[in-house]
Amino acid sequence: MREVSAVARATGRTVGLVPTMGAFHRGHVELMTAAGRQSDVLVTTIFVNPLQFGPDEDYDRYPRQLEADAEVAAGCGVDYLFCPAVAEMYPAGAADVLVKAGHLGDLLCGARRPGHFNGVATVVVKLLNIVAADAAFFGCKDYQQLLIIRNVADALDMNVEIHDFETVRDSDGLALSSRNLYLTDEERARALNIYKALCLASDIIIGGERDAEIVRRKAREVVEHEHGVDVEYFVICSALTLRELAHVRGSILIACAARVGATRLIDNVRMSVE
Amino acid sequence: MREVSAVARATGRTVGLVPTMGAFHRGHVELMTAAGRQSDVLVTTIFVNPLQFGPDEDYDRYPRQLEADAEVAAGCGVDYLFCPAVAEMYPAGAADVLVKAGHLGDLLCGARRPGHFNGVATVVVKLLNIVAADAAFFGCKDYQQLLIIRNVADALDMNVEIHDFETVRDSDGLALSSRNLYLTDEERARALNIYKALCLASDIIIGGERDAEIVRRKAREVVEHEHGVDVEYFVICSALTLRELAHVRGSILIACAARVGATRLIDNVRMSVE
Repeated sequence: MREVSAVARATGRTVGLVPTMGAFHRGHVELMTAAGRQSDVLVTTIFVNPLQFGPDEDYDRYPRQLEADAEVAAGCGVDYLFCPAVAEMYPAGAADVLVKAGHLGDLLCGARRPGHFNGVATVVVKLLNIVAADAAFFGCKDYQQLLIIRNVADALDMNVEIHDFETVRDSDGLALSSRNLYLTDEERARALNIYKALCLASDIIIGGERDAEIVRRKAREVVEHEHGVDVEYFVICSALTLRELAHVRGSILIACAARVGATRLIDNVRMSVE
Repeated sequence: MREVSAVARATGRTVGLVPTMGAFHRGHVELMTAAGRQSDVLVTTIFVNPLQFGPDEDYDRYPRQLEADAEVAAGCGVDYLFCPAVAEMYPAGAADVLVKAGHLGDLLCGARRPGHFNGVATVVVKLLNIVAADAAFFGCKDYQQLLIIRNVADALDMNVEIHDFETVRDSDGLALSSRNLYLTDEERARALNIYKALCLASDIIIGGERDAEIVRRKAREVVEHEHGVDVEYFVICSALTLRELAHVRGSILIACAARVGATRLIDNVRMSVE
């Protein structure tokens, strides 16, 4: 991988990186396709990173489908698919040296998944270094992750541009996620309420309401009204700091995490409010 | 700084980095001179890193002598002297994103200076990234620091070679350190006992003793016998893992930290024992 990047660099070509955990869906396809247009050499990594999973989470059952993914990647113009083994990434076993994601890593999903974002930050720094990427591309569904990676790259003075890409949805609005594979048809139908609630919150704000608590309560009702959607958080916060807002104003993020059956899903919408 | 490195890289030249806190002595001179021989472009950084000082340590009074240092660096063939301000390195004030040095950072000096090596690891990663160094050069007086940086660079897959350089001593054996400037003549005379004790330990081992505790006790007596040398630690440990040894064997480190008056000094010798 280093050799590929060294050659690209020596010949003046830019290297783009799309770090993934595989199990590609249309969100990955669109992200890789867009990244390919902005990179001379496009590298996609597939690595289900044990460091970012908690002990009771879905590391073991996370979908792994390397052959199918390789075909998809080839169809998206990916030049190199880099799929290291866990023992290559963490030769000493557990990671000892860590990148701490900082305070942004303690909010929202970080509050429910302790250490998760340290695991994300550590593996992304490693992959950026291995690939020697000039640019890396992330989807906005994992908006907190995007913000943290941007912050880490900036704080550690990494010479890389972090690009974001809009969340890709099914025609009925469900945000695409590899974890949607876990859902039964019935759960999938219930999961739609997450995005519905986010859109309702957005509509209420567009309608003129600026009291975040009122917006939040009304919208959250939509998710919770449906049996079997267990809301972890539903927040209206600054899209820059992730701090919850009392008054809706500026660049905001409406974000929700919820469990549908055994599956934890997240989604968000962002908007700019005068 | 990034532009300098980009130009060097584009023209196929290697960039070497000597990260320092300034207050140059002959140790720095020899280190920079050696680094210059191995680098097409040599960058020395001077940055007294607040992140690696504890609240009761000597951050405020650490010697700062930029003009004199600049002259010394020029005489050593340093191409660029990079001296960022604290506000440039940590624009948000305190560092939020951190590189955790791992278990090696909790031993020896790390046990007495909590957070010290996280501060070192974080600033060195930042400097390596800013300078885009192909190689970095460190003195062996701060052997634990060297080991930690090598481990961090490896764990985070940084594309950099870490070179070490033997400790430079005054003719009477005192390891050169910017903190020697703090010593009165009388303290300096007492400080000599640190190296004397390290050499005695080495001699006892060469003489055949393999019981680390016996070696340690005999040698430590030399340091403690002199009034006003307050030993923080005197250890015989693996030079690879820094774990203390019961039986002296393999690649070993004999290391001492001690206070002479208000000044904390460290020194070490390494040897290979069959």
